[in-house]
Amino acid sequence: MEWGFTRFSKKHFLHLSLGLLVGCWNIQSVVAQSAKDSIFMAQIVAEALNNGHSYKQLGALCKEVGPRLSGSDNAEKGVQWAQQMLSSYGFDSVYTQPVMVPRWERGTEDRVTLLSQNLSELYKYLSENDYNCETYNEAHPKPNPLGIYGLECPALGGSVGGSVLGPLVVVNSERELDSLGGLGQLLGRVVLLNRPFEKDFINTFAAYSSCVTQRVNGAPLCAKYGATGVLVRSMSHRCDLHAHTGVTHYQAGIDSIPIAAVATGVADLLDWLYRQQWEPAQIEMQLGCQTLPDRMSANSIAETRGREFPNKIIAFGGHFDSWDEGEGAHDDGAGCMHTFEALRLLKTLGYQPRHTLRCVWWINEENGLKGALKYAELCANEGQQHIAALESDRGGFVPRGFGLDSSLLALIKPYQPWLAAYGFGELTLGGGGADVGPLKRQDPSVGLVGFIPDSQRYFDVHHAETDVFENVNRRELELGAAAVACMIYLLDQTLD
Amino acid sequence: MEWGFTRFSKKHFLHLSLGLLVGCWNIQSVVAQSAKDSIFMAQIVAEALNNGHSYKQLGALCKEVGPRLSGSDNAEKGVQWAQQMLSSYGFDSVYTQPVMVPRWERGTEDRVTLLSQNLSELYKYLSENDYNCETYNEAHPKPNPLGIYGLECPALGGSVGGSVLGPLVVVNSERELDSLGGLGQLLGRVVLLNRPFEKDFINTFAAYSSCVTQRVNGAPLCAKYGATGVLVRSMSHRCDLHAHTGVTHYQAGIDSIPIAAVATGVADLLDWLYRQQWEPAQIEMQLGCQTLPDRMSANSIAETRGREFPNKIIAFGGHFDSWDEGEGAHDDGAGCMHTFEALRLLKTLGYQPRHTLRCVWWINEENGLKGALKYAELCANEGQQHIAALESDRGGFVPRGFGLDSSLLALIKPYQPWLAAYGFGELTLGGGGADVGPLKRQDPSVGLVGFIPDSQRYFDVHHAETDVFENVNRRELELGAAAVACMIYLLDQTLD
Repeated sequence: MEWGFTRFSKKHFLHLSLGLLVGCWNIQSVVAQSAKDSIFMAQIVAEALNNGHSYKQLGALCKEVGPRLSGSDNAEKGVQWAQQMLSSYGFDSVYTQPVMVPRWERGTEDRVTLLSQNLSELYKYLSENDYNCETYNEAHPKPNPLGIYGLECPALGGSVGGSVLGPLVVVNSERELDSLGGLGQLLGRVVLLNRPFEKDFINTFAAYSSCVTQRVNGAPLCAKYGATGVLVRSMSHRCDLHAHTGVTHYQAGIDSIPIAAVATGVADLLDWLYRQQWEPAQIEMQLGCQTLPDRMSANSIAETRGREFPNKIIAFGGHFDSWDEGEGAHDDGAGCMHTFEALRLLKTLGYQPRHTLRCVWWINEENGLKGALKYAELCANEGQQHIAALESDRGGFVPRGFGLDSSLLALIKPYQPWLAAYGFGELTLGGGGADVGPLKRQDPSVGLVGFIPDSQRYFDVHHAETDVFENVNRRELELGAAAVACMIYLLDQTLD
Repeated sequence: MEWGFTRFSKKHFLHLSLGLLVGCWNIQSVVAQSAKDSIFMAQIVAEALNNGHSYKQLGALCKEVGPRLSGSDNAEKGVQWAQQMLSSYGFDSVYTQPVMVPRWERGTEDRVTLLSQNLSELYKYLSENDYNCETYNEAHPKPNPLGIYGLECPALGGSVGGSVLGPLVVVNSERELDSLGGLGQLLGRVVLLNRPFEKDFINTFAAYSSCVTQRVNGAPLCAKYGATGVLVRSMSHRCDLHAHTGVTHYQAGIDSIPIAAVATGVADLLDWLYRQQWEPAQIEMQLGCQTLPDRMSANSIAETRGREFPNKIIAFGGHFDSWDEGEGAHDDGAGCMHTFEALRLLKTLGYQPRHTLRCVWWINEENGLKGALKYAELCANEGQQHIAALESDRGGFVPRGFGLDSSLLALIKPYQPWLAAYGFGELTLGGGGADVGPLKRQDPSVGLVGFIPDSQRYFDVHHAETDVFENVNRRELELGAAAVACMIYLLDQTLD
C-alpha cells in the first residue's frame, strides 16, 4: 500500500464516524442522542490512545510479576503489586477482599516421553508436513526431533501426579473412545484425546466450547475403561508446538489418573504414528504435580464513589489469576487492564459518576472461581446493590462490541452508531462471563455485560507459554479499554 | 477465560449469524434475500477456513521467493513462481502481461552513523525509557548502543546515493522546518523530519496520510534550505527499532539529496539528544543506492470465463511487488492471496460465474504504478469492459468490510446482514485503491471496491523488515479471502 497513488480519508475520526453512520445506519437514531455523549466518548477514545496506561501497566504486570497461578507465591506478589499500582492513581478507595483459594502445583521435573526408535520416519514426516503446520510462526521454526521424543506436555491443572507407562492409543472422538473402551482395548493404555477444533466456527469460543470436554472430563472418560494416563490435544486452531494447559476434573468413584496437554503439532505426529502402526509406540508419563492445602489470596478492588446513587454499584473487571504457562497477558491481564484503565480514563477526564464505579480483579477464575463467589457472598452480606456488572475475559484483541442482557441491550442500542464509529458497535444478546455469574444467580435483576474483542487469535495463545506481553498489540489493548470505558459511561448515564 | 464456568454459544455460525441479525438488524431486509445466496456464502466461508490455500501459498511466496522490489531479480523469480502456482489450479486461463518497470537498487554497504561520544548518557536515556518504547516486542529487546551508533537507516525508495556529513537538526513539523530554514539554520545540516503519527485516528490510514508527506517530499522540502541529507521518522505508531522504508520523490530545480528512514525508537533518541544539546551530534550518511535503466517485468493474471457475459469483467487483485525490507507479506502478498483464493474458492465450489472473473496481481504499485497503468491501457486498447474492480491492499488482518462506490453500495447493502454475520459487514462509501484507479479514470462507470481489514496493526509492519509471513495470522488471512470471495460472488450475481 503506497501513498501518493491512493486516496485516503484525511478526516478525523469524528468525521470518519459520520461517514460510517451515513453509510450504515439510520441517522435518526443518532440525531436523537445528545451531542454531550458523543463528545465525551470521543474524549475517552482520544485519551486512551494518546495517553493510555493500559499497555505500560500490562507490561509491568507481565514482566515484573509474571504468571499468577492461584495459590502460588507469584500470585501473592501480584496481589501486592496490584494494591500498590491501583493506590498510586488516587481513586476514592482501593482495597483487597481476602479469600481462600486452591493451590495446585506443577512438578518441577514433569516428563512425558515417546518411546520410539524410528527416527528417520519421524524426520520424513516432519519434512513433508512443513506447510501443514504453522511452525514458521515459532521461535524454533522446526520441531526438534529430540524435543519430540521428550514431549513438552505440561500437566493439566488439577491433575494428580504419578508415573505411568503404556502403549499409545489415539482417538478422535468420544464415540471412538467408547467403542475402543467397550472392546477392552484401553486397558493399561495411555490415551491421546485428539478431537481437533472445528475451524469453520466464526466465533472461536464456539469451537472451544465444542471440544473442551475432552480436557475437562478427559481423565474419568478414559479411566473408566482402564486407561492409565491421558494426553489431551491442545485447545487451539493453530498447528504448532506449544501445549495449552487448563483445568481438568476427576469424578468420584473413578480412578484419578495423570493427564497432560499436548501441542497440536505433536498430537498430529502421534496420530500419524499411531495410524501408521509401523511400531507400537509407548508413552511414559512422569508427573510430579500435587494439590496442597488452600491458601489465602485476595480480590483487588478500586472504586470511584457515585455522586447521585453511591449505594448502587456498577462493577467491571477481569480475573487476576492466570495459568502458570506464559504470563497471563491476554488471559486475563488484558481484562484487568481494560477495566482499571476504564476507571482511570473516567477519573482523568473529570467524570463524576452517578453510581459507584467499581473495578474488580477477581482471583481464581481459572481453577475454582473462589474470588467471584466470595465477592458475590460479601456483597449479599453487606446488602450492596449491583445495577450492572461487566466482565472482560476474552483477551486484549481489537474490540468488536458487547454482549448484553436484554434489558441493557434495549437501553444501549440507541448509542450503537457511536460505538460502531470506533469499531465496537456489535451489540448482541447475552452477556457476562464466569466472574459476574454468581452476582446474577444471587440477584437476577443485575444486568450483565460481556466485552467482546475479536476472537480469531485468542486460542493461538490461550493457556500457553505464548500468552505473553509481546503478543499483545498496544493499539488493540488501548481501544479495548476505551470501549469498556464508553460502555461504563453509557450504563452510568442511562441506568437509574 | 475458563470453560466449565462460562456459558458459550454452542451454535454453528449460521445460528450465530441469526443471533447477530436479531440483535443488530432489521430482519425484514434479510428475509427478502434468497436462501441460495446465504447458503453459498456459508459454503465459501467454510471452505476458506477448512481447506484454505491462501496461507500455505503466502508461506511459499514469502519463504521461497521473498521480497519483490520492482526491477529486482527476485521480483522476476516471483513472477515465474506466480505463473507456475496459478497454472497448477486449472483456471480457464493464466497469463502474464509484460510491462517495463523502474529499477532502483539499495546499496550493499549503506551506512548512517551518529557521531557522538557520550555513551553513558545514551545508556541512561535507554534505561529510563523502557516502557515508553515497545522494545519488549522486539526480537532484540533492548537497543544495542553499538546498533544505535551505527543506525539502521535504510535509504528511502528512489533516494540518490552519496556521502554527506553534517550537524543534526530535528524538526517535528513543517512549520518548524520552514522557520529554521528561513533563518538559514539548515544550511549544511542533516535534518530529521520527526513528525509522529497521530494516535487518535481510529482508521490508521488517516494517520499515515496526515504525515507521509515528510517521507514522500522530504528531500526537496529540506534541500531548498540547503540541507545536505534527510532522515525521516518511520510511518508507524509503534515505538520500536525497525525502520520503515517507502517511496520518496525529488523536485525539478531542487538538489537531489540522500534521504533515509529511521526507526521511531531511534528518532525519539535523536530528538532527545538534539533537545538536550549536551553535545553537537553529527550524522554521517553513506548511501550507495542507485537508479538503473527500466527493466521488463509483468502483471500476473488468472481468470474464469463468464457464462452469460464473457466480455464483461469483474477484476480483483493486489500488487505483487513489495519493498525489499521484509517479505511483502501483508503488503501486499496478503492481497494477492485474498484474490487468488477468492477465484479458487468459487471454482472449487463449482460456481459458474455470469461474468468473467479475473484475478490480477499488478506489478510496481510501490514505486511507479506501471503495472496498473499498463493493465488499464491494454484493456482500453482491446475494448475490454470492466463492470467492477476490487483491490485488496490493506494487509491480511481480520476483515471488517468494504468501501464501495455509491452505485455498488446501494446494490450490496441488502446483503449487509449476511456479511456482518461473518464479521465483514462494515460497508462504507468510497472504494478502490491505487491499482484500480487507472481503470476508473479511463471509464468512470467502473464500480470500485476496496477490501477493508482491521487497520490497527498494519503500520506496525508496513514497509519494514517485520512484514514477514510470521506476522500474518492464518485465520485472519483466510477470513479475508472468504470476504473477498463473498463480495465477488455478490457482484457477479447482482450486476448486469
